[in-house]
Amino acid sequence: MSVNLPAPNPDELYPIAGVRIGVTEAGIRKAQRKDLTVVLIDPGASVSGVFTQNRFCAAPVQLCRQHLASGAGIRALLINTGNANAGTGEDGRARALGTCLTLARKLGISAAQVLPFSTGVIMETLPVERIEAGLDGALADVREDNWLRGAEGIMTTDTVAKAFGTQVLVGGALVSITGISKGAGMIRPNMATMLGFMATDACVSQALMQQLATELAEASFNRVTVDGDTSTNDSFVVIATNKAMHVPIESLDSPDGRALRSAMLGVAKKLAQAIVRDGEGATKFITLKVEGGKTPFECRQVAYAVAHSPLVKTAFFASDPNLGRILAAVGYAGISDLDQTRIDLYLDEVHVVTQGGRHPAYREEEGQRVMKQSEITVRVLLGRGDAADTVWTCDLSHDYVTINADYRS
Amino acid sequence: MSVNLPAPNPDELYPIAGVRIGVTEAGIRKAQRKDLTVVLIDPGASVSGVFTQNRFCAAPVQLCRQHLASGAGIRALLINTGNANAGTGEDGRARALGTCLTLARKLGISAAQVLPFSTGVIMETLPVERIEAGLDGALADVREDNWLRGAEGIMTTDTVAKAFGTQVLVGGALVSITGISKGAGMIRPNMATMLGFMATDACVSQALMQQLATELAEASFNRVTVDGDTSTNDSFVVIATNKAMHVPIESLDSPDGRALRSAMLGVAKKLAQAIVRDGEGATKFITLKVEGGKTPFECRQVAYAVAHSPLVKTAFFASDPNLGRILAAVGYAGISDLDQTRIDLYLDEVHVVTQGGRHPAYREEEGQRVMKQSEITVRVLLGRGDAADTVWTCDLSHDYVTINADYRS
Repeated sequence: MSVNLPAPNPDELYPIAGVRIGVTEAGIRKAQRKDLTVVLIDPGASVSGVFTQNRFCAAPVQLCRQHLASGAGIRALLINTGNANAGTGEDGRARALGTCLTLARKLGISAAQVLPFSTGVIMETLPVERIEAGLDGALADVREDNWLRGAEGIMTTDTVAKAFGTQVLVGGALVSITGISKGAGMIRPNMATMLGFMATDACVSQALMQQLATELAEASFNRVTVDGDTSTNDSFVVIATNKAMHVPIESLDSPDGRALRSAMLGVAKKLAQAIVRDGEGATKFITLKVEGGKTPFECRQVAYAVAHSPLVKTAFFASDPNLGRILAAVGYAGISDLDQTRIDLYLDEVHVVTQGGRHPAYREEEGQRVMKQSEITVRVLLGRGDAADTVWTCDLSHDYVTINADYRS
Repeated sequence: MSVNLPAPNPDELYPIAGVRIGVTEAGIRKAQRKDLTVVLIDPGASVSGVFTQNRFCAAPVQLCRQHLASGAGIRALLINTGNANAGTGEDGRARALGTCLTLARKLGISAAQVLPFSTGVIMETLPVERIEAGLDGALADVREDNWLRGAEGIMTTDTVAKAFGTQVLVGGALVSITGISKGAGMIRPNMATMLGFMATDACVSQALMQQLATELAEASFNRVTVDGDTSTNDSFVVIATNKAMHVPIESLDSPDGRALRSAMLGVAKKLAQAIVRDGEGATKFITLKVEGGKTPFECRQVAYAVAHSPLVKTAFFASDPNLGRILAAVGYAGISDLDQTRIDLYLDEVHVVTQGGRHPAYREEEGQRVMKQSEITVRVLLGRGDAADTVWTCDLSHDYVTINADYRS
C-alpha cells in the first residue's frame, strides 16, 4: 500500500552511543504483537520534545510536558501501542504516571525522568498491569543496535517500519543520527498518533534542545498531512547523548550547529515523509509548493487547503487532471485579498493555469500524464510576494474509507 | 442514495405572483438534459443575493455582484448547468456578459438587469452559442407554476430535485414562499456549486433585501457542509415581488418582518438541509449542536472541525461509535484555551463523555444503537459560556470517493 517506501536499510541505522532500545510483546490490546518499547538514555543527555497542539491532548502528552519542564534529566522513554490513553480524564493521568513510577523504580531513577507515550484507541482505559508486567521483558531486550526493532515496536496500522539515519562531521568528529517514526500525524487519532524519536551522539547543550526540536519538527512533521486530523497524542522527541568527541554546540547558527541541524533535518524529513508515503490508503505522494506569497504562513494556508480538499485528493486518486478543484481550494484558503488574475499553476513542469485562467498551450493529455505518476509536484504561484513553503500529502482512496470505516471492528 | 429526502411535494410549491420560470434542453454539455433555466421577474420586485467567499469566484458570480450593485432593478435570472465558467479569466467574464446581453435584448431590458449563474465543470469555456440558441425555448416555457421544473432544470449530480414552499400571514395577507436549490454547497466545486433561489410575493423594500438574504443564508446554507470544499460559484438569491396586499415590511424586527423572516427561514433550512441529505454518497444526516461556548463563532469552529473530520465521517458511515475521534476534532478546532476537563458529549440522548473522560455509565451498545440510525444528533458541551450554534453534515462513504474519483471520466 505504501508509495515508494522500502523497508529500513539496516546499514543506515547507526547505533547511538548512550541510547539503548528494548521491545517486547505485552499483550496490551492484541496478543503476539510488539507493543511495548523502552528507550534508555545514559545520564548527561540533552532531551527535548514537541507535542500535539490538540487541546484534547492525551494523558501521556500532559506528563511529557510536565516531566520535561521539571528539569530532571530524562533517562527513559516508555512507549506503548494499542491504547492512546486519551479522553481518559484524571484516571488516565494517574495510570500514565503509575507506569512511569514502576519503570523508574526498576531503573533507580525518578518518575519525572521518564517520558511516557501511548498510541492506539482513544477513550479506553490504559491496561497498566499489562504494561508493568511487560517491562522486564523490554528491559532484558535493550541494545544500542536495536533501532529497527524499535521502529517495529511502535507500529500500529503502519504497513512499513520507518527508520532512517545518517552520519555527519561535526567539529571534526563523525557523529551519528538515527530516528524512527510511526503512524501518520493527522490521519490516525484512533489507532492514534504520529510518534517520532531521533537521537544523536552529538554534543548539544540542553539550552539549545528545544529550539532544535522545534526547528526540526516545523520543517518536517509539521509539513505533512494526510487528512488534517491532528491527533491527541502526536509527539516528537530529540535526544543528544553528548558522547561524541567534539566541542559542544552552543548555537544552531554556528558552522557545527548548521551542519548538525541540516543532517538531522534530512533524517526528520524522511521520517515525516515516510508517514505520508504509508498514509492510510495512499497511492500517490504529492508535494505542494506554494510560491509568491506575502508570508510563508499564507503559503502554508494555501498548501493545506489544497492538501485537505477531499475533492483534490480523490482527483489524484483517480489520476484525473481535474485541476479546477485545485484552483477552488486556492480560492477558499482564506487569503481575503487574493487576486485570482495573478495565479499560475504547474503540475510538475506542465503549465496548467496562467493569470487565473487555463493556459492556452495546456493540453489535458499533458496533465493526465503527470497525474498518472506515483510522485507529483503541484506548484501554485500566488504572484503577491517572495515567500514560499512546501507541504507533503497523499491522495484519498477507497482504501482510506475502508481502513477508517472498518478499523475497530 | 439520499437520506430521508422525498421528491418535492407539488402542493407545497406555491406559484409566486410576478415570477415565471422556463426550462429547456440546450445541450450545453450533454444532450437531452434540462440544462438552461430562465426566471423572469416582474418590474418592481426587490432582489438580493449572497455569494461564495471563494477568491476564485466564477465569472457569473462577479457579474451578479456588479449587476446587483448597479441598482438597475433585476428582471431575470439566467442559469446554466454543465459548465461553471470558473477559472476562465477575462474571456469567461465576456462570455457571461454576452449571454446576459442576448437575453436582455429579447426581453427589452438592460444586461445589468440579468443575473447569470453557471454550475458545472471548472476551467472549461462557456459555450455561449448553445446557451443563446436555447433561450427562445426556455422563454417559451415560462409559467408561474413551474417551480418543480425549475428545480429539475438546475440539477447536476443531484439525485433528487429540491423544492419547498410555505404560506404565512403577513400584515393580514396570506403570502407565499417557494424556493429551489441544487448541489451541495461545499462538496462539488467540480460539477460545481450550491445554488439556491427563493421567491415570495410579500412586500419587502429593496433596502431590507440584503439583510434578509444574508440572515437567511447565515442560518441555513452557511450551516451545512459535506466536505468543506467551498465552491467557486455558490449563489443564493432572494426575490420579493411586492405583489401581496399588505403594507410593505420596513424592518425585519417588526411583527410582520419576523413572521416573514421565520417562514422564509423554514424554507431556506429545508433547501439547505436537502443538499446535505443528497450529499455525494451520504448515508446519514448528522446534526452537530455545540453549546456552552463563549461565542457562536467558536461553537461553529468546533462544529465544523467535527463535521469536516474524515475520521469522524467515516466512523458515522461505519456506524462505529468511535467517539474519541469526535473528541480529537473538538480538541484541534482552534480554541487555544479550551479546557478538556469541562467537555461533555452526547450522541442523541446518550451521555458519552463527561468532564473530558468516558462517562462511567456509558455502554458501547448504547452508542452503537444511535450510530446505526440514519439521523443522528451530536451534542458537544464546551462548559465555558452560554453561546451555541448548529451545523448539519453527512457521513463519508465509499460512494463519495467513487463519485468524485470517477465523475469526469
